[in-house]
Amino acid sequence: MHLKEAGIDEGISEVIVTTKSASGEPNAAPIGIIAVTNKDENNYFVRLYKTSKTFSNVQETDKLAANVTNDAVLFVEAAFEPLSESQFSLFYDFPVLKEANSWILFDCAFSEKTRETFVFRLTSLAVKINRKEVKAINRGLNAVIEAAILATRNAITEGERDWAEREKLMALYARIVEKCGGRREKEALKILREKT
Amino acid sequence: MHLKEAGIDEGISEVIVTTKSASGEPNAAPIGIIAVTNKDENNYFVRLYKTSKTFSNVQETDKLAANVTNDAVLFVEAAFEPLSESQFSLFYDFPVLKEANSWILFDCAFSEKTRETFVFRLTSLAVKINRKEVKAINRGLNAVIEAAILATRNAITEGERDWAEREKLMALYARIVEKCGGRREKEALKILREKT
Repeated sequence: MHLKEAGIDEGISEVIVTTKSASGEPNAAPIGIIAVTNKDENNYFVRLYKTSKTFSNVQETDKLAANVTNDAVLFVEAAFEPLSESQFSLFYDFPVLKEANSWILFDCAFSEKTRETFVFRLTSLAVKINRKEVKAINRGLNAVIEAAILATRNAITEGERDWAEREKLMALYARIVEKCGGRREKEALKILREKT
Repeated sequence: MHLKEAGIDEGISEVIVTTKSASGEPNAAPIGIIAVTNKDENNYFVRLYKTSKTFSNVQETDKLAANVTNDAVLFVEAAFEPLSESQFSLFYDFPVLKEANSWILFDCAFSEKTRETFVFRLTSLAVKINRKEVKAINRGLNAVIEAAILATRNAITEGERDWAEREKLMALYARIVEKCGGRREKEALKILREKT
């Protein structure tokens, strides 16, 4: 199956990546799956921070699952807190998120590294589509994702000017969520504010 | 049918609104459909600028169609230029966009007005789902939408400081499209740059 059908398209697809440790402990984190398009063929990669739980799990098991979802709350929860056991299901004995619209289980092969990150090349092992839908663009959902990315960036390396810029952007994203979001986006913003 | 199934959910759903004049000339413009949620019931509204073609068409026919799509190019084209005849189809004799994932034909009833806008209450007359899909969030798509909204705002009423802020945001959105977008998002950004 072409991964586009399962929701992973050109550019960077923002998904929740689930992994497990050698001892079977599940983890979830919002991460981008990078498609590098060459003619009409896509090659898939992921860039992981060396300090992340996702990275150490991938080192231990050589696998990760991409969970495609539009749920703003799930993105924010996965960014800031461990998900509860009841939010996970199993797909080929690998932890995935019950509520995801699709699951793609990937094999991960080392591709390159930088000072802070490792890049892995992804090969899909199994794909499951749970739910197809029609959904109009909601600017509030987008704003929650941008705010979560901004909030999880390392604040220590930033100067005062960057910090002021960041606060201005956070206020802009919050206004968009309040104006355009539905209940899930507003709930996600509330969690984000409590965590940052 | 609940409109959520057709892609119109809580908060503001960004769609392409198609209308026709009394003489049958079709028009398309990106506009938000506003859902006001009361308990579990949604009421739908749209706010139209008095100077817009969409407004004069709604005055003439009392109808509009919401076209749900994720296509960045379609959004930017509809914002900046008339669509070609070949991009339209007919749904209950009303112009809609061939490529949309769903169509909702609405009756429009006057609700309230401000100095620059009229608000209409929307009642769905007919719904058609053309295509359901799974699609991961793409930050590039979101950034195109934000950039298009920023570009179509009335520049005349803005001071120099606002203009500098706006240029800074435009540059941020362009960076996100370049980094995260697929071919359609990059094509949309190119059109947007040519038009502004």
